Amino acid sequence: MTENSFEPRFTGYAEKVRNSFADQHYMAHIGARITNIRPGVVDIEVPAVSELEQQHGFVHGGVTTAIADSAAGYAALSLYDEGDGILTVELKINFLAPADGEKLIARGQVIKPGRTLTVCRADVFSMAGGKEKLVATGMMTMACRPSLKH
Amino acid sequence: MTENSFEPRFTGYAEKVRNSFADQHYMAHIGARITNIRPGVVDIEVPAVSELEQQHGFVHGGVTTAIADSAAGYAALSLYDEGDGILTVELKINFLAPADGEKLIARGQVIKPGRTLTVCRADVFSMAGGKEKLVATGMMTMACRPSLKH
Amino acid sequence: MTENSFEPRFTGYAEKVRNSFADQHYMAHIGARITNIRPGVVDIEVPAVSELEQQHGFVHGGVTTAIADSAAGYAALSLYDEGDGILTVELKINFLAPADGEKLIARGQVIKPGRTLTVCRADVFSMAGGKEKLVATGMMTMACRPSLKH
Amino acid sequence: MTENSFEPRFTGYAEKVRNSFADQHYMAHIGARITNIRPGVVDIEVPAVSELEQQHGFVHGGVTTAIADSAAGYAALSLYDEGDGILTVELKINFLAPADGEKLIARGQVIKPGRTLTVCRADVFSMAGGKEKLVATGMMTMACRPSLKH
Repeated sequence: MTENSFEPRFTGYAEKVRNSFADQHYMAHIGARITNIRPGVVDIEVPAVSELEQQHGFVHGGVTTAIADSAAGYAALSLYDEGDGILTVELKINFLAPADGEKLIARGQVIKPGRTLTVCRADVFSMAGGKEKLVATGMMTMACRPSLKH
Repeated sequence: MTENSFEPRFTGYAEKVRNSFADQHYMAHIGARITNIRPGVVDIEVPAVSELEQQHGFVHGGVTTAIADSAAGYAALSLYDEGDGILTVELKINFLAPADGEKLIARGQVIKPGRTLTVCRADVFSMAGGKEKLVATGMMTMACRPSLKH
Repeated sequence: MTENSFEPRFTGYAEKVRNSFADQHYMAHIGARITNIRPGVVDIEVPAVSELEQQHGFVHGGVTTAIADSAAGYAALSLYDEGDGILTVELKINFLAPADGEKLIARGQVIKPGRTLTVCRADVFSMAGGKEKLVATGMMTMACRPSLKH
Repeated sequence: MTENSFEPRFTGYAEKVRNSFADQHYMAHIGARITNIRPGVVDIEVPAVSELEQQHGFVHGGVTTAIADSAAGYAALSLYDEGDGILTVELKINFLAPADGEKLIARGQVIKPGRTLTVCRADVFSMAGGKEKLVATGMMTMACRPSLKH
């Protein structure tokens, strides 16, 4: 999908995203890491290890959703002010193919930024032997909370 | 919410659900366990431990979604034939309050069973000092796959 | 489903809902009318006439969604202040059975009211010969806009 | 957004879509017409007339959703066999901006075709003075029903 082009509100937006991500214990628990931060765009990867599997041996939809949610949330956060925080209001995700392969990559992006609400999309791909496959696509509504800070 | 009343198709439905759940490595990875299985109804709990937290110290929405998804999926599975498996087609979840407290409980239930598609709802509650609070509510579409077995 | 119990913020909440509904030309265009207003609960009916049909002779999903959305929106509006207005942020709906029969009834209710966002549910039933059937179930996020007034 | 490229299964796919659309009384009732049919892609327009308004004078979200749903459904139908029909399993839509202007255009497209389920996206734009604005974006799950024929 083509990406919109956004201007960040302050130069330290990427550092803020990295710091907040580092505070998410759960992202560490599943082995996730951020691999791309641009204004309104954040990618998060997770290795397709055994601990993350569901009963058929694919990565659990809860993991797919978690990285999609976080990628979208940080894409939104990257466009707000330095002191602003983000909460997920709601998300919807369609699972399109089994999440197999070596790792999953969630690509979150802002569709429509707003003063208090930002609507995002996140596509999740599995990587196997250098080939990527779309395994899920989601839409999320994020709310800015000035007091949350990250 | 009031619950519909459903008839299972075979007597071993609860054991099948428990066996499939035991095969979900990811459920063990987050410390989740099944606490209730009835026809069309499954509850899953997870302790609100540090590894599952997001950046504000609450349980990550990906965990909330994972147990909601699994509770709903197993609620659906409980109404299918012995040899049938289940896949999540899509899910939508609204986050209503911070997921704090000692543990989370996802209560999945079937709203409309069908030959190939079953629509479910799952409410997620946090428990703190014996009091429960609704923290999320979701809707899921599950697909029956005869060849998957669980 | 069981209903939560809510207190309206001012006595004229039902009149405000009726007045706003009367301003929705589209509700008149499809023949919809409000049949129940209580704090946090609104029902809207529409006759299953030929103009509202899709290609298989059932009521179009767009109509089902429209009355579900409006019922949920007015359920939310009934709990806000006299000068507040409501916008739908997003909605999700599952179609469970063909929308046949003599009329459709959407029952909207508030699940979680909030200062700026209110999460609602709406079930839509078809009526045929005095019997009702659940044809759709949806979840909606509504935003309060103080300047919109209705 | 960039579009996937799909092969139709028979040459008369566009005529089939037009014939089915002509059977949707509700599409005529709101003044909608198809303006583009390609494999996996269908556009539907509706004039922003007074009968379609909600209480603030914008096009009702139910109309926006109806054309998004139909555009996505016909995008899916265009990729199935001559004798196949389509039903909407569920849809989710985010409303991004007021639906004002002279007309609305829903652009439906297939994201992931499947044997029984097809996942689609639909963006809805308003047109005012030759300029288009994104007013809503949605995701839909469509089910193929071989016996429905359109």
